[in-house]
Formats: sequence, structure tokens, C-alpha cells
Amino acid sequence: MKFITAGESHGPSLTAIVSGVPAGLRINEEQINADLARRQPKFLASEGQETERDHVIISSGVRFGKTLGSPITLTVANNDAKQWSDRMANFGTPPKNLAREVVPRPGHADLVGVLKNATNDCRNVFERASARETVVRVVAGGVAREFLAELGVDVFSFVTRIGTAEFVEDNPIEAAPEYKPLDIEMSEVRCPNAEATEHMLKMIKVARTKGESLGGTFRVVATGLVPGLGGFESGPERLNSQLAAALFSIPAIKGVEFGLGFASAALNGSDVHDAITHTKKHGFSRASNHAGGLEGGMTTGLPLIMTAAMKPLPSMTSALPSINLDTLESEEARSDRSDVCAVPSAAVVAEAEVAFVLANAYLRKFGSDNMEDIYTALAAYKKRLAAQAR
Amino acid sequence: MKFITAGESHGPSLTAIVSGVPAGLRINEEQINADLARRQPKFLASEGQETERDHVIISSGVRFGKTLGSPITLTVANNDAKQWSDRMANFGTPPKNLAREVVPRPGHADLVGVLKNATNDCRNVFERASARETVVRVVAGGVAREFLAELGVDVFSFVTRIGTAEFVEDNPIEAAPEYKPLDIEMSEVRCPNAEATEHMLKMIKVARTKGESLGGTFRVVATGLVPGLGGFESGPERLNSQLAAALFSIPAIKGVEFGLGFASAALNGSDVHDAITHTKKHGFSRASNHAGGLEGGMTTGLPLIMTAAMKPLPSMTSALPSINLDTLESEEARSDRSDVCAVPSAAVVAEAEVAFVLANAYLRKFGSDNMEDIYTALAAYKKRLAAQAR
Amino acid sequence: MKFITAGESHGPSLTAIVSGVPAGLRINEEQINADLARRQPKFLASEGQETERDHVIISSGVRFGKTLGSPITLTVANNDAKQWSDRMANFGTPPKNLAREVVPRPGHADLVGVLKNATNDCRNVFERASARETVVRVVAGGVAREFLAELGVDVFSFVTRIGTAEFVEDNPIEAAPEYKPLDIEMSEVRCPNAEATEHMLKMIKVARTKGESLGGTFRVVATGLVPGLGGFESGPERLNSQLAAALFSIPAIKGVEFGLGFASAALNGSDVHDAITHTKKHGFSRASNHAGGLEGGMTTGLPLIMTAAMKPLPSMTSALPSINLDTLESEEARSDRSDVCAVPSAAVVAEAEVAFVLANAYLRKFGSDNMEDIYTALAAYKKRLAAQAR
Amino acid sequence: MKFITAGESHGPSLTAIVSGVPAGLRINEEQINADLARRQPKFLASEGQETERDHVIISSGVRFGKTLGSPITLTVANNDAKQWSDRMANFGTPPKNLAREVVPRPGHADLVGVLKNATNDCRNVFERASARETVVRVVAGGVAREFLAELGVDVFSFVTRIGTAEFVEDNPIEAAPEYKPLDIEMSEVRCPNAEATEHMLKMIKVARTKGESLGGTFRVVATGLVPGLGGFESGPERLNSQLAAALFSIPAIKGVEFGLGFASAALNGSDVHDAITHTKKHGFSRASNHAGGLEGGMTTGLPLIMTAAMKPLPSMTSALPSINLDTLESEEARSDRSDVCAVPSAAVVAEAEVAFVLANAYLRKFGSDNMEDIYTALAAYKKRLAAQAR
Repeated sequence: MKFITAGESHGPSLTAIVSGVPAGLRINEEQINADLARRQPKFLASEGQETERDHVIISSGVRFGKTLGSPITLTVANNDAKQWSDRMANFGTPPKNLAREVVPRPGHADLVGVLKNATNDCRNVFERASARETVVRVVAGGVAREFLAELGVDVFSFVTRIGTAEFVEDNPIEAAPEYKPLDIEMSEVRCPNAEATEHMLKMIKVARTKGESLGGTFRVVATGLVPGLGGFESGPERLNSQLAAALFSIPAIKGVEFGLGFASAALNGSDVHDAITHTKKHGFSRASNHAGGLEGGMTTGLPLIMTAAMKPLPSMTSALPSINLDTLESEEARSDRSDVCAVPSAAVVAEAEVAFVLANAYLRKFGSDNMEDIYTALAAYKKRLAAQAR
Repeated sequence: MKFITAGESHGPSLTAIVSGVPAGLRINEEQINADLARRQPKFLASEGQETERDHVIISSGVRFGKTLGSPITLTVANNDAKQWSDRMANFGTPPKNLAREVVPRPGHADLVGVLKNATNDCRNVFERASARETVVRVVAGGVAREFLAELGVDVFSFVTRIGTAEFVEDNPIEAAPEYKPLDIEMSEVRCPNAEATEHMLKMIKVARTKGESLGGTFRVVATGLVPGLGGFESGPERLNSQLAAALFSIPAIKGVEFGLGFASAALNGSDVHDAITHTKKHGFSRASNHAGGLEGGMTTGLPLIMTAAMKPLPSMTSALPSINLDTLESEEARSDRSDVCAVPSAAVVAEAEVAFVLANAYLRKFGSDNMEDIYTALAAYKKRLAAQAR
Repeated sequence: MKFITAGESHGPSLTAIVSGVPAGLRINEEQINADLARRQPKFLASEGQETERDHVIISSGVRFGKTLGSPITLTVANNDAKQWSDRMANFGTPPKNLAREVVPRPGHADLVGVLKNATNDCRNVFERASARETVVRVVAGGVAREFLAELGVDVFSFVTRIGTAEFVEDNPIEAAPEYKPLDIEMSEVRCPNAEATEHMLKMIKVARTKGESLGGTFRVVATGLVPGLGGFESGPERLNSQLAAALFSIPAIKGVEFGLGFASAALNGSDVHDAITHTKKHGFSRASNHAGGLEGGMTTGLPLIMTAAMKPLPSMTSALPSINLDTLESEEARSDRSDVCAVPSAAVVAEAEVAFVLANAYLRKFGSDNMEDIYTALAAYKKRLAAQAR
Repeated sequence: MKFITAGESHGPSLTAIVSGVPAGLRINEEQINADLARRQPKFLASEGQETERDHVIISSGVRFGKTLGSPITLTVANNDAKQWSDRMANFGTPPKNLAREVVPRPGHADLVGVLKNATNDCRNVFERASARETVVRVVAGGVAREFLAELGVDVFSFVTRIGTAEFVEDNPIEAAPEYKPLDIEMSEVRCPNAEATEHMLKMIKVARTKGESLGGTFRVVATGLVPGLGGFESGPERLNSQLAAALFSIPAIKGVEFGLGFASAALNGSDVHDAITHTKKHGFSRASNHAGGLEGGMTTGLPLIMTAAMKPLPSMTSALPSINLDTLESEEARSDRSDVCAVPSAAVVAEAEVAFVLANAYLRKFGSDNMEDIYTALAAYKKRLAAQAR
């Protein structure tokens, strides 16, 4: 299962094609639209931001709500495309009064993109290197999520820090799989704890007043995984490698860890490694999940737990020092009306990215043609594991 | 440029094939052997560990010390292979007294590997899922390093933490590129600071006494990179994604960050984004390097700085609780004579992995056939950038 | 440069996303529409077939007619989608009177597709496994063709056989690059010879009367290539391998050959290998082009010449014997109103496939970021070759 | 399952690494050596050619004769490496009297390779671009063949033409799967027909006298395949595309066709498409196999039948006209003592290439971790198909 996205931030629309999806999988547009809604954080509404909801249209690969096995086309219109149609026209000559963007914004792809692609207009870079693109990653990820759901796998996320406002937990790794979707999504910042939510919202409010932006951290959790996904035979087969590649493909992600992560670097081995246990009922398990669900590059069967760090948004109301590409003189970068913080949204994008990696691990293990054969292979595997543990 | 490794820990040898190397690149076996030596940490010698040095043999792809463009075969013999030749024979019947390994060790690939591959002997898993395999990653990475060196790029690493012994720096990101290879390699733990080295060695000594193992953190730095390597056009093109995949493909890595990394999540935007500057002499630059050398998924031209966290070694002299696969009863996992800490070695492996990603970014940007054409294309690019910044 | 296509034959539209296109490439929608027109053969008009022309819409990756480096979305609407909207609805319940397609047609993907994908309706297979999908291959290929045109490379095709009507040439390989586009496209069957065209049209007319379908052969030619594209270092780098994979990815292609192809199997070595020549003006060349422009898996600089064989269309007005999937009784497969012959169209699709392979060979050799750097690298290469030959 | 090969023709050895092989597969070195022997054609012996047999050494990925799931290293020594050790030294300075090869041989990679890789010695090209490399393709393919054999799939080949000596059959496609391995391997030219063998040997003898070389055609057949391998959903999934890429990756292959191939281009549709049949005992089948076992890019379950054309060897005892790279004057290319014809060997290489493609199609369909789970998934699939056909 692969996806590719296309589309500029102010172009007519964003498109994703998802290929390699098994035939016979039920797809629910409303479920995908709900994911899109989760990506558009509620606290923005109060800022008078666009409230027009993103909305997916599926135009191939699905018939009567079930996949055909052929590639799936998913499109999300850019609601304000019309007012950009002259500056972002795909064809025709530029409008006479077209203002090139010549002051690259620090923290953005602007400057390096302009150098790499030999252009003189930062817009030619940032229209694509924009968080807007992640809309169709969420949409594409919806297909992977439906596939995983069919196999009993749930992927969710929640926010654990915004700026210095941290959601402090006693035992974060053990707690992670237990949070309830409802508690997460009820929070305006997608944090399952009411007090921490309050704190984070306050922090956002302050930052907004100061024209600042904020980053944060979030956790992505996957439950219901069978053991043995991924592989140890070579580096690229390690699921850690694939999952980290997926998370770091999201703009503004600056750190990723699995389970205890950086904290494990300071501990003794006997405090880190998860003792192997066994019960007649559940077979093999672990006394703890410090590893975050991966051992030797493979799922252990315990919940997969990753934490990611996002830097503050580089689009800010306060201007940052830069250089005008035409004059080569100092000039402040354009200050935008902007979100203060995109961590709750980024976490939803991360769910999509993680879902793809996990879906592929299932397909490699259980075949990829159609749901019926995949169910059969998965059941046979579970049966074999049960036998091996009895 | 791609590599694949093969070989078991106690098999006859480890092999890597590196393909896609441009023709006309000078290769130096001694340089690669020096990297191998750096991977075999000095403090182990004092533990009475094997002092026999690993040693590479190159048997294809190189003629009179220069690459032909054809795949390069690099082999490292396992020095103790002979004494394992009965238990690890590639062919023939197992020795009668062959003891299967039936108590999977926590923190290792043992248990999940046995389930995944439907075997009843953990050795069939851990012979491959072993740090020994990283020997040939270093060897393969040596080819990438020679290529980068030709283009003015240097990749190095140093240790910043072992257990609770941390190398505390005032401004770690700005300091990182300044450390001297000699200072690093003179340290028994590959830390450029004498005091921190002392502290780390003490920590290792204590851990050894207690039968404990230790993890830590290390930094990988690349200098001399042109801006514009990688890409922002789609997620997988982002160099962050490729670099993280490479680092997380190394066993026991549990966290990776770029530049300020997790710390940036707690800061204000204006304290994170690197102001763009310009001088006649050097063209565009930045007032700081909080981003760690990457913006929009591309190199900025400033040093690339990554930090990785490694968990404590799962091979320990103290035993960990486990289950016997045959009896399904509780049993302590085998306790090995073992290294206490492999962080200094892992950092050398990480250099190799990073070198490959960077080498490929150069090849995609400047062509891949032969060194002569690559020099020409690189020079032309630098000339264009200089013109754009004047 | 990669493309992926999506879309069913009677769904709302077909979509292609082309990624990895260098920035700064001029794209011409009209040129792509002209390719689409070439794919809809003229002789069909006389059959009263749909005359509504296919038409591409580009909605991303291009601004003011130039590529941004970001993925390009190309869509072609299915003109008769409305009348299929109930039977091919992406969502909702099937119409009550929905007739499943239960008699698989020989020569189609129908039967095997139904088995592979565990479905009971051949339409779930043949809506995708349809020649209609090649519309967006042509559209995607248009991007590759514009890129190649900028570098002086022209890709074209012509028909050499329809059924037993063959275009007999004295020296087909030497003649191939000399045919004029106008002569080809003026022919209703895309054959540059008037007499052969006549013969082929007559053959089609007879076949139509008999309810038969016809296959044929066509040639794809690329001129203006530099020597040294592709590679000999490993099998998959050989351009022959990549080109054949591209041509055989087109439905109904049953044979492919390069240069003399199968004929060379019957000749003596001294009659096959192309003597190497040299002139001061043009440097190295060959006395003949029996190899069809490839030696050792690389372009020689002479025209690339491939011939492909297409089987007769499996959609026929005469019915073929089959089995009803529900009853398992013998039943004739549905007879369709159908084209008699699609060879002229398939040749246009083949141009697109070949163009992609060649474009990628250029990108690997000369870098991939933007046209400006690619021009520079190409010029430097030509200069080096000239120096080597002087 | 992937393989990569390394090694020069007169270097110390050739190496292949095969990765992605399921755990628990029995590997037989003798079987692989037997394939190597089949690649060294018997009729050469009479020419006084080297009779020293190639011989594989497996040094990783296999324990007690069974795969571990980890990459398999296969090495074949070059028996005459010693006498080349000065001219082909991997390191050190070239011998003083080293003669560069400066007259590129027509039909070889020599000239284009020298241009591509910016070298002045054709040996730097032809040491790799040599038929000798295919030795380790055969060896690597042996792993794929053992895997397929376990699943009931047999891949074999035979020669159908050498020069103008053709093995004329009444109904070649129907006959192909029926030939007996013994009859094929007993023939000095690997042709199952005694009379045709005689004719071919005579042709070789004549050619040798004249200093000529010969090409020919051969057929590759795979039996025992389940239906539904490959896919129709996108072009690259079509098995035709993958198989053709594999065959054309072999040096000197100039044409490939499936089933009737080029002949089908001249026939009416009703004479080409294979009527679908059904019996209670065997389920769905076909009245003929003109398609050569593939429909819609997927296996039909009937034998897979491909024919390939090989050009005459470019290494000839008669010299071909060329140009001296140093003087740019006309000069005859080096005439080698050489085989007259390598078609019987190339067919064995083709078996290996085809085996890899088929093995991968099985792995994608039935999972890839270990033989036990693959047997289970395959059995379940066969059961489902049987149910669908009852």
C-alpha cells in the first residue's frame, strides 16, 4: 500500500492516490471526513479562522463502498482556490501586478528551496512545502486505517506538550494505550487530561498575544498488533526504521522516540528490558512495555508507542530577520496571520503515516490481494502462535 | 549507492555489497580498517575482550585502488568462526549434542523472531539480529565516506552520554561541528571532553561490577554539505526522513533528533528559527543552527547535527526473567559475558548510515556515473549559487 | 520521474500523478491533448464511435505553464460517466437491477482477476483492466516527452503490421528514424506508407465484417539520445530491461524486440555487430544500427529502435466460448461493440512508456532538481565526450 | 526475494547476496552446482575449453541446510584469478607493462562504457559487462528455484534455434511443457530433439571454422503455477512486465515474447484467445494456451511460456572493424578465442531470472516470513479457488 500526494496550498485542489489496497475492503467517506475534522483543531475556531470544513471526494478504486484492488483517488478541494486563481494559475501568463515572494522566511523551505530549484519566487517553493499538503496524507491514511481496523488494529494520538505546558504522567508508556478517544477529541488541544488541556490553551493564548508560535510533543499509539510484524534480517526491514521515516516525513518534526526513548539512555539495562512472561490464556507477554512495542525491529504484540517533537510553527505574526533575494539587503520576513500551534493537527497526520507503515507490514506478512485471503492468513497465524505458546 | 549486508555473528564471515558507486573513486582499505578499529572500543581491551582486529577484504568493484562503477564486495572474517563451525555449519546435520537456545532474552529479537520465523531455536534469530552485523555496515559506509570526502564532506560522531554520565555543553549545537577528531578518538569512550570521558568510564566500571549494562546518547555531525540536498516536494524526499530511517535501522536506537530536537518543542518560535543572513563573501547563511542543518527537508549548508539515544545493551551479565520455550516455565535468560556499553561503537555505525544517505543525496543531485562528471556538476552548482547570492 | 494512474473505465475520471519532475520545465496542455488525439485513431470515426475528444486538466505542480518540481496531477474525465453513475457508484448501495458480469471473456483479465481478488463480478476487474486506463499513461507520458524535447530527444511510433497486412521495408532499422511525423499521423492507421495504410485499412474492414479483431506490430523510435544512458553494472540498470518492462506493462503486448531482434538470432556475428567508426566532426559512431541503439545495456547515441507485437483485441463482436461463474455451465462471453484493432493507439501509449524510461535515464545521469542545472550538466557531458573523441 | 551480484570476470571471485528468503527453506548446494554445470555447455569441452567446473560456496543465511531468513551469501571463485592477479589487482599500482585495452569491440559495452564512466581502458568496463557475471545469477536463482520447487513449481528451458538451425515443432506452445529435463540436458545444445541437436551442432562446427559466432532462441517454461500471480491493477504489477525486465537484463537478449508472441499479431482474435473451460475435477481451465500462461498480467494456472532471442556473441575469432581510442585511427578489435554460441547457457541464466520473478509473486501473495506460514496460505488459497469452481 503506497500513497502519493499532489497539490499546492492555494491551487485548485489536493489529490492523493493510494495504490496496493486489497480488494473487498469497506471504505467510509464519513470516517475520512471525521479524520479531516480532527486535523482542523477546534481552538482555531475561536480565532476566527476558516471554519469551512475539508471534505474528501473519492473518484476511483471504490465501488459501492468497497475497494476494487485498483488505485484509489482522493481529492480535497482548496476552499479559497478561487481568490488565488490568478496568482496560482496552472497555465497562462502571470498577472501584471504579480508580486514575487522574495524574502525567504526562516524555518521554512523558502530559501533552500529557491536555491535548489533555481527559481526567484519563494511562492514556487512554499505553495508545496506547506502544512496544507498534510490534508491529503490524512485522507490517504484513512484507507490504511480502515484496513487496520478490519484486522483489529487501532491507531490514535494525543498531545503531551505545547510549549512549556506539559501533560505530566506518572507512567506515560503504560498509560498511553488506555486513553479514551472521546477524552482526546473532546479536548481542544487533543490532550486526554482536562487540567493539562487548560494549561496548554492558556499557553497558546499568551503566545498569540505576543505574536509567537509554539511547538510541542505528541504520542502515537497503535493497539491490537500481532507480534512479528517488521523484521530483523536487515536494517531497512526494522519497523523502527520505517516508522521513524514516516514520522520525520511530516514537516516540522524534529525528534522521534520509541517507548522510553531518550530516557532509556540514562537507565540501567535491568530497568529497561521488558521481562518475558507467559500465561495459558494469553500466551507470551511482557511485564512492562518500556520498549514501546518493538523488539529487534519487530512488533512484540504490546502497544506500539512513539513520541514525536514538533518545533514551533515558522509562520508567525512576529517577523523574523531575513534577506531580500533581489536586493540582498536585510529585511524582515513576511508576518502572516497564522495558527499559533499545529501540534494537535500534526498528531493526526502522524496517525496516518503510522497507519501506512503498519498496513504494509500486515500486507507483507499476510498477502495483499483481497480481504478474504488476508483474514484467512491472519487467523492461521494467530492459530500457529497460540499452538507455539501452549 | 546502496548496500546490503549478510552474515551471522558466528558464521564464517560477514559480507557487504555496495552498488551504485561512481567509477573513478579512490578507495583506501586502510581507511576502512581504521573505521573498523574505531568501532572496536578501546575500553573493552581492558576487559580482556577479543583484541583481534577486524579487517576488510575487498574482492570486486575496485581495480588498482579505484572504483570501476561495478558493485564492491567487502568481507570481514569472523575470527572465532572455527570454534563455532559445528554449531553454525551452513550444511550438514546438527551435532548430536547441539543445545538449542530456548530461553529468549528480553530486549533481544529472540522471542519475536522465533514466533515470526516459526523456529524453535533462538540462535536462528540472534545470530543475525546481532550487533556483530554492524561491522559490515561500517565497512560499506567506508565507501560512502570516501565519496563524500572527495566532495569536501566530513561525517563524524561523538558520545554525549553514557548512563547518567552526561557531557554537558553550553551550546551543544553550535559546538558540535568544532570538536576535533583527534580529541574524540583519543577518548576511550569517544567523547571529546576529558572530564566527561573520565565520568563515563567510571560509570562503566561501576555498571560492570553490578553486572549491569548501559546505554547513552551520541551526536553525528556532517560538515561541508552544499545547500539543497534532499527535497520538500514529497515526504519521502525529505532528508530528515531518510536520515532517521538510517539511524533507526541500527539495533538498540530508541530516539533520534535533529538540531535542538525535543528541546525546540518547549521554546517560542522566535527562539528557534534561524535568522537568514548574507555576506558578500559567503553568500546566504544563518545566525544560528538550531535546525541542525535541515530546513524544509533539505540541507541548509550549515552542519548537519543529529543526536541519537541508545538503550542499554540487552546482553547482560545479570540475568533477566524469561520463559523457556519448550517448558513454558519461568527461567532466567542466559547471562553472557558481555560489553557493558556499546554507545561509542554505535556512533561509528551511525556515521556509516548517515554517510550513505548523504552520498545518495549528492548522487541524485549531481549524477551518478563517474567522479569526473560529478566534480563538474558540483562545481557548476556552486557557481550558480554564488551568482544567485551576488 | 514516476507516474501512477488511477481510475476505472466507466468511473467519473482517470487521474495520473507524475512526481519527480524537475522545476522549470515548460508544459503545454495542448501538446498533451494532441497526444490524446493521436491515441484516438481516426479510422474509428468512420465506425460511428464516440467522437468526443479526451481532454486533460492539470491541477497541480504547474504554475503559469512551468513545473514547480512538485507532483503534477493530470485528470481526464470519462465522457460517458453520467450514464454509468448508478452501476459504477463509488458509494451507496448497488441498484436493485444490477447485473453482475458472470461470464469471463477469454483474453481478458476477467477470470483470473475474479479468482485473485475473490469477487463474483467480472466488472470489478475489467473496469480497471481496460485499455481506457492507457489514456492517462499518454497524459503522464506527455510530461516526460516535454522534458525530453527540451534535451533534444524525440520519441515517436508507427505501425508496421495489422493482421497479415505488413509494411514491408527493405532496411527497417535504418529507415525507422527517417519517417516524418506528418506522414505517420496523416495515415489513419499511423503507418508512414500510403500503400501499406491502404492494405491495413482494407484488412480492418474485412475483419469488422466478420466480427473479428486484429493485432499487429509497431515500432517505437527515439532520436537525439546521448550515448551512455543506462548501465551495464547490474542487470536492472540495463536500459533494455527497463524499456521492455515499460512496453510489456501495456495490456495486450506479447512481444518486444530491439533493433534486429529475433532476426539477429539467425545471423552470423559479423553480420550483426555494428562496426565502430569515427569522424572528426561527429566523433564515434557506427556503420550500422542493428543493435537498435543499445549496446551493453546503454544507449550508443544512435536511434533507439524497438518493435512490439500486440495480440488481437479480446473485446470482439463475435463471441468466444466461456463458462458462467454462477452456473459453471458453458456460455458465450458477452460480445461487445468494439474496435477491431487498437495497434495505432497502443503505439502512442508505448511512446509515453518509453519516454518515461528515457527521462529517468537522463535524470539519473544529469541530476533531477531543475532544468537549469540539467542543461548545464548535459552540456558539460557533451563537451567531455567531444574532448574524448578528438 | 532480491539478489545482487558483484565481481569481475578475472577478479578473485563472484559474489551474490540473496535477501528476503523465507526461513525454513531447504537449500541444496549440489542442486545449485548442478545448475552451474548446466550453464557450462558440454559442446565446449570438445573445444578444449576450461573444464574446471564452477562451484558455489554458501557462507551465510543457511544453517544445517535450511535458510534462517537472513541474507544468503553465495560465492563462486574465478578459477584463473591467480594468473590475472597483477592486471586485476584490487589495490596497489598497475604493473609497469600493463596494456590498457584501447580498441573497443563492436557489440560489447566497451565503447559506450568507456564514455559513460570516463575511463581510458575498456577492461574497466568489460571485466564487469561480461557473461561471466551470469554465473552468480544462476547461483542466486538456485535459491528461488528451491523455493518454487517446494511450492510445486518447476522452471526449465530449452534451445529452439542456433543460427539458422531451428527446432521446428508443430505446436510449440502446447508442446513446450511436455519436454523431459533428461532429453534437454542430454543434448549438447540443450535441445530436446535429437535431430535438431545434430543440426545445431553442425552449424556450430561450421561457424567455428569460419571464426563466426552464432545466436539463437530458447524457451523458458514454468509449470505448476497457481492462477492469480501478478496483477492487473497497474502496469508494473503485470507479470509480463516483470518477467520481460528479468529476461532483458541478461546480456545479448534482443527479443522476448509470451505464448504465440509475434505470431499472434498476424492472427484473428478468434484464433488467439483461449476459450475458458471447466471440469468438476480441475475447475477452470483453457482449451488452448496461446497466451503462454498469462492473461491480464496474471498467471492463468497454465504453463508459463516465454521465448527469447539472443544475438550472436560479440566475442569472435574474426575481428570486427573499430577505432583505437588513443589514436582515433581505424583498427581491428581484438579477436578472442571464444565460444561460438552461448544460447544453451543463456537459457539456464534465464531460468534463474524467471525463477526470481515467480518467487516474488508467490511471496507477495502468500506472505514472506517462513515456509510453514507460506504452505498454510497457499493451501488455503487453493481451497478457496476450488470452492469458487464448484
